[in-house]
Amino acid sequence: MISENILLQVFVIFTAAKLAGELFHRLNQPPVIGEILVGVALGGTALGLIPEGSEVLDALQEIGAVILLFMVGLDTRPSEIRIIGGRSLAVGAMGIVLPFFGGLAFIFLIDGSFDEAVFVGAAMVATSVGITARVLSDLGVVHEIESRIVLGAAVVDDILGLLVLALVGGLVAGDLSPLSIAALAGGAVGFVVIAGLFGTRVVGAAAPKVERSQIRRGPLALALSVCLGLSAVAGALGLAAIVGAFLAGMAFSELRPKWDLEEQLEPIYELVVPFFFVVTGAAVDLTVLVRPGTLGAVAGITALAVAGKLIGCGGAAWGMGRRSMSIIGVGMVPRGEVGIIVATVGLSRGVLGPDLYAVVVTMSVLTTLIAPPALKALYAGRPRDKPPHVGGRRNEGIEGIGG
Amino acid sequence: MISENILLQVFVIFTAAKLAGELFHRLNQPPVIGEILVGVALGGTALGLIPEGSEVLDALQEIGAVILLFMVGLDTRPSEIRIIGGRSLAVGAMGIVLPFFGGLAFIFLIDGSFDEAVFVGAAMVATSVGITARVLSDLGVVHEIESRIVLGAAVVDDILGLLVLALVGGLVAGDLSPLSIAALAGGAVGFVVIAGLFGTRVVGAAAPKVERSQIRRGPLALALSVCLGLSAVAGALGLAAIVGAFLAGMAFSELRPKWDLEEQLEPIYELVVPFFFVVTGAAVDLTVLVRPGTLGAVAGITALAVAGKLIGCGGAAWGMGRRSMSIIGVGMVPRGEVGIIVATVGLSRGVLGPDLYAVVVTMSVLTTLIAPPALKALYAGRPRDKPPHVGGRRNEGIEGIGG
Repeated sequence: MISENILLQVFVIFTAAKLAGELFHRLNQPPVIGEILVGVALGGTALGLIPEGSEVLDALQEIGAVILLFMVGLDTRPSEIRIIGGRSLAVGAMGIVLPFFGGLAFIFLIDGSFDEAVFVGAAMVATSVGITARVLSDLGVVHEIESRIVLGAAVVDDILGLLVLALVGGLVAGDLSPLSIAALAGGAVGFVVIAGLFGTRVVGAAAPKVERSQIRRGPLALALSVCLGLSAVAGALGLAAIVGAFLAGMAFSELRPKWDLEEQLEPIYELVVPFFFVVTGAAVDLTVLVRPGTLGAVAGITALAVAGKLIGCGGAAWGMGRRSMSIIGVGMVPRGEVGIIVATVGLSRGVLGPDLYAVVVTMSVLTTLIAPPALKALYAGRPRDKPPHVGGRRNEGIEGIGG
Repeated sequence: MISENILLQVFVIFTAAKLAGELFHRLNQPPVIGEILVGVALGGTALGLIPEGSEVLDALQEIGAVILLFMVGLDTRPSEIRIIGGRSLAVGAMGIVLPFFGGLAFIFLIDGSFDEAVFVGAAMVATSVGITARVLSDLGVVHEIESRIVLGAAVVDDILGLLVLALVGGLVAGDLSPLSIAALAGGAVGFVVIAGLFGTRVVGAAAPKVERSQIRRGPLALALSVCLGLSAVAGALGLAAIVGAFLAGMAFSELRPKWDLEEQLEPIYELVVPFFFVVTGAAVDLTVLVRPGTLGAVAGITALAVAGKLIGCGGAAWGMGRRSMSIIGVGMVPRGEVGIIVATVGLSRGVLGPDLYAVVVTMSVLTTLIAPPALKALYAGRPRDKPPHVGGRRNEGIEGIGG
């Protein structure tokens, strides 16, 4: 019934995240890095204050990711997506190929197990749209064209990444039926297209009713309900829940100014989003960094993960100029939840050993720590967007960038 | 790592709660009843969509209660408490005696087990300050003198109720050391007095630093951190966590207008508080209502629970006039989390059988369903408070009351 222990964990995580955010802000670094490092410090192999496999913390992590992506979706009008959609598709697809085959080849060479190599390759595929979104938001550059392409591409490669997982899972289990793959792919693509194309219209049609609602903050209730609902549907279809949350946010992007959704969601964001980053950081097994065999694997896999996205995604931005190509490549580098999910599936099926699991999780966090300072440097000195509806949230950090 | 199932449950609970709130508002009934009945309907013995013992839902229930009581505390200035403190103390203490001995005698007569009777008596003691606070808030009468007395008394009897639990637990286990009781009592009373007396000053001293903070919404972060921290401390001292949340809210009551805390906390409130009521409702075991033996026990225990508070608490308000006495008596009727906690402790120690456990939980919810319409009728036609800082939240429902 009651769980004082949980309240204590929630208190420690929240407070440490905010203090670290403040510290990193003063050090002229993205606050999100502070939050992730708090997670590493509180995690099972360091202070041990965040126990592994806590259902409650995992749920708070998930809810944090969902709210984060909903906020990013709120900033993304479907009309914009149509303009940059082709480029995002190219960037997302190209960013899949190199990391997958790079990781597969590397692990097969050092380890000899094809099954393990395939799972590690699959785990290296998907950019963490959550982490990238937070970094871009902290830098105040969400509206830049490169940011839009990266966010779109991150959604694309989340979808492709989960298809790769289905393929790989089937391949390893030997039950790869073309029909089941087609069903998964069809469901995923259909969901994204339908929610993306019709979400705005459906929400717009429901809006007048909700505005007459008698309960407190009816519009906010509708927004949260659709966000949770599409997240659950995405999960049921085998996609990452955050893909649904992003699409839900997009569906409300037209209503955002009228309903003041951003102002209302910000307090919720400030409460729950730190749990995503802290709990993600806590998944790092620090002992892999001191064991000689795994340390080499971490270094190799991380280098391939970075190079694969820089070359693949940066290359797909060909013709946009060197700085834009670099921004897009770097923006796609952070791995996160999807990679960790793939690794978890591999671990639970007995395909991936605990060492390689730790290697993949560590790679996810390292790529996440590399990207923010690099993005900050690349965006430095460029004019930043300040659309009239943007409050303090997205523009915090601006003072820090010029320095 | 991921928990789509949890997201689905969260979606269903949140959406059903909002729809039921809307329906009950239109039916001119307090929305909170709709939320509790949604819980009953979704609970294990009805639709089964809320599984018993889900750690995640229990944690969300707890976080909902904590945010609710923090908001109530925000509305309670320590200076007010000093004025009405004596009366609250009398109401709280008197409301303990009758239900405890009434419940004890009744169960001993029908059941013959002294241990069981003592636990049921202890579970009948504590008013649910969470439920009462929400009802008063929905009615827009939080600032009425009777409401203040009831909220103060509910905190008092939460503390006394948990002392009774300690006594009873020791009595049944045979390890009742006067020292341990004194330590618990001293810790509880000391915490309340220290947090109540010095909270405002400590927060006031920290305020200028936080206002210079670089992170987004620093003041909100401090408020949430103190709220979670005092809740965890209260839990560690053996008190209900919500007592800490209430005291934390009180400590910020002076800063509330300047920091716009209410406006910032409302979206969080609207997201998490429904989980408290829905998950509480889900604890009802509907099968006790159809078994002849238990149905009689439910009726008897519920009648004694209502009569004990009406007579004890109403009597302690002697001299305030009949209507005020009735309001105070009725306001203290709802039982909730503390009663259920006591019953859970009894069940887990093997003292209370599953039937009597279900009886106690059902009594808790029935008393909760009785109070709102009665309070609404008693407050009807009286002028209501509309202090300048009160937003839509507390005054919603006003239109409904006059009807």
